[in-house]
Amino acid sequence: MAWNTAETRRRLKQAATEEFAAHGLHGTTVDRIAERAGVNKERLYNYFGGKERLFATVLSDELAKIAAAVPLDSLRAEDVGAFAGKVFDYHAAHPQLVRLLHWEGLAFDGEVPDEPVRTEYYRQKVEAFAAAQEAGVLVGDVAAADLVFCIIALVAAWFAIPQVARMLTGADGSSGPECVRRRAVVVEAARRLALPSGTGDATDAVLAGDATHQHVMSSD
Amino acid sequence: MAWNTAETRRRLKQAATEEFAAHGLHGTTVDRIAERAGVNKERLYNYFGGKERLFATVLSDELAKIAAAVPLDSLRAEDVGAFAGKVFDYHAAHPQLVRLLHWEGLAFDGEVPDEPVRTEYYRQKVEAFAAAQEAGVLVGDVAAADLVFCIIALVAAWFAIPQVARMLTGADGSSGPECVRRRAVVVEAARRLALPSGTGDATDAVLAGDATHQHVMSSD
Repeated sequence: MAWNTAETRRRLKQAATEEFAAHGLHGTTVDRIAERAGVNKERLYNYFGGKERLFATVLSDELAKIAAAVPLDSLRAEDVGAFAGKVFDYHAAHPQLVRLLHWEGLAFDGEVPDEPVRTEYYRQKVEAFAAAQEAGVLVGDVAAADLVFCIIALVAAWFAIPQVARMLTGADGSSGPECVRRRAVVVEAARRLALPSGTGDATDAVLAGDATHQHVMSSD
Repeated sequence: MAWNTAETRRRLKQAATEEFAAHGLHGTTVDRIAERAGVNKERLYNYFGGKERLFATVLSDELAKIAAAVPLDSLRAEDVGAFAGKVFDYHAAHPQLVRLLHWEGLAFDGEVPDEPVRTEYYRQKVEAFAAAQEAGVLVGDVAAADLVFCIIALVAAWFAIPQVARMLTGADGSSGPECVRRRAVVVEAARRLALPSGTGDATDAVLAGDATHQHVMSSD
């Protein structure tokens, strides 16, 4: 692929990610994406086939990015709280993915674009959680898929319904101390949810001494 | 208020709830709501002032309905798992509220309509959770507001990103056994999150014998 083709594709995907995250699939137009990218919209059709395919491409790319940024093997090296904390950090730094998934959830009825590929992506997550259950580092009596979903839920809600979070906590959590505090809530919730019982005291010890907690303390 | 005024208002709000839940504030029009209600759109402007005020009215009504349907005093009479199960049941039967809140979360930047009134609504929830903490039936070392938010998150995600839930669990959960199964996951997650440690065994006993569990069993 020639440099200018690669660069044009990159600019179109970047512009599409921002536009789709802000306005959803139905709320944005090919014209607006092309204008933001500074690229003729014919090239968008040539490279991506149209708005729906571009939305699917953007979502797949974002899922690949988080998979690379938060590797699943950290589930074994650390505890599930630390893992959930990394997932939170990723979304705090890249709020587009949660928004894209929620736009999609609100707009689509039935199968979503690239569903087989994305199902395989989630299957790998579930497999890693199941392996951690086998190894005894995660509770065994909640299905692995449900543990994955609950952790996604506990992280994503802060970014999907920030107005509810603000009305409940009385603070804006998009950055600063409240963001750090919310991260600590997610870490603690993931541990309570998914660490085997009997490791509770160990968890408290970890919580009292680990970097996250010190971060909360020092950020005030 | 004359009967026909009350009935017209009711029809407009009903139509608006369906349209806004399906398409969001920006995705629907006054014309579409008026047409669905079978009411002249001038009356919509007369009664509600416009689309934004109607959206705010609909959301406030839906929040009042869930508050009435899932009274907070059940937090003391039952355990937090049973409470979360009732919240799940409400949303499963009335999926509009989760959708309205997520459309709002994606669309609004900053203060939302009726924010003071809604903040008061959430304050009452937090107060009930704090009282349950005082009474020793909820963990005391997670802030009450965060417990409320985590339970909202654990329930709402099943309805907000159903495509992710489907890809993870391999099943459609909008009704039937998978919906019942997801409810049981929420009940269990809420208990792990919010019941004081040391009540774990009691929880298991409750889980093995309570109506929820029997419901899961009998629905297969």
